[in-house]
Amino acid sequence: MRNVQVCFSPALFQFYDSTDRIIVVTDILRATSAICTAFQYGVKSIIPVATIEDAMMYRQNGYMAAAERNGIVQDGFEFGNSPFSYMTDHVKGQTIALTTTNGTQAVEIAKEASKVIIGAFINLSACADWILKQNENVTILCSGWKNRFNLEDTLFAGALVEKLQGEIESTDFDDAALAALRMYQEAKDDLYGYLENSSHRHRMQRLDLEKDVRYCLQLDTTTVVPILQGKHIVNAL
Amino acid sequence: MRNVQVCFSPALFQFYDSTDRIIVVTDILRATSAICTAFQYGVKSIIPVATIEDAMMYRQNGYMAAAERNGIVQDGFEFGNSPFSYMTDHVKGQTIALTTTNGTQAVEIAKEASKVIIGAFINLSACADWILKQNENVTILCSGWKNRFNLEDTLFAGALVEKLQGEIESTDFDDAALAALRMYQEAKDDLYGYLENSSHRHRMQRLDLEKDVRYCLQLDTTTVVPILQGKHIVNAL
Repeated sequence: MRNVQVCFSPALFQFYDSTDRIIVVTDILRATSAICTAFQYGVKSIIPVATIEDAMMYRQNGYMAAAERNGIVQDGFEFGNSPFSYMTDHVKGQTIALTTTNGTQAVEIAKEASKVIIGAFINLSACADWILKQNENVTILCSGWKNRFNLEDTLFAGALVEKLQGEIESTDFDDAALAALRMYQEAKDDLYGYLENSSHRHRMQRLDLEKDVRYCLQLDTTTVVPILQGKHIVNAL
Repeated sequence: MRNVQVCFSPALFQFYDSTDRIIVVTDILRATSAICTAFQYGVKSIIPVATIEDAMMYRQNGYMAAAERNGIVQDGFEFGNSPFSYMTDHVKGQTIALTTTNGTQAVEIAKEASKVIIGAFINLSACADWILKQNENVTILCSGWKNRFNLEDTLFAGALVEKLQGEIESTDFDDAALAALRMYQEAKDDLYGYLENSSHRHRMQRLDLEKDVRYCLQLDTTTVVPILQGKHIVNAL
């Protein structure tokens, strides 16, 4: 029996089992979508860091560095967490230090687990395939927004639960996994429409980031599976 | 514009606005359903307490006292949180100290708010009507299960959001309120069926409490609105 749990906020992670499991960290808008895009475009590794000061330190030591807070690229950095900013030859073979409002904090919290991977709609099937090859329980950790529940990460969790449900014969889903699954099944024909009233969509609209939202809601545009190894996120494949 | 939020766990409450709002605490299986039932049967007041020791102290001082942990009435108490145990003339006019695994802890966390009321499916319309008469923002606080998300409290939150949505012209719902609403709209024709696979249903089945579950999922069997006043919960009506 494989056990699949969904944790709706980094602040709840302490109440979930976290050892001997795969933790799938997601932050659909936009950190984990950006990380997957970066690997698709040939980044060698990403170092998730908690603070802007940490990211700046890496930058001053010759690394590329990216910093986002509240949707905005921070002063002194070329990158934030827009996936489009990683679609360039400049990133190829590079190591990039990255700090974001929610996503990199979630990676930080999950890092004691045996395996931490990075999930997004754009690498959904690759994530699912990779998980199915391991014989381990799974926790999908939604980054949320400043520790609050959000819809888009929940829909991704539901999408991944649906993939796993179809392939693993005996699975024990917790209530949050069931809720996420049902929401995704209602939403999947029009993710963009389903998120119409969501708080983060409004935040993105204000910041004129609709193009980013549409990009992040596409399925399976890449086959990368970013995985945490020590301090670095690398491509597992 | 009235703002309506849903908080899926007492552990997330610190990230939500809590001053100058109505907090609706819910713990469908079974603390808040039991509290509503107690008032329906004429209880004068309920003192929610955090620990079994606190409840025992009240008992030794001549109060009625009730204590539940993990679904089971604790040694030395006649009451737990089965609604059926309050359907007796013995409780009429009494003050009862109550401690439960999740529900009374949520009341404890919410108590600094201006108004804390107790919600359950059995007093859903009464709750909604009472809220509509106040001109305040609302947070629905789900007790969950040991700080984890649960389905039945979420469905109640969705039911209450649906009631408020229909009556308040301009409302700002957060993502959790939208999620709860959509789940309730999918589930409402068969709440019992929707909860078939939920973790707490399984817990209740093991404890042979199906009768309690069916009772707690009924709508509007009472018009009481329990409200916190100082240390005591009393009927607001």
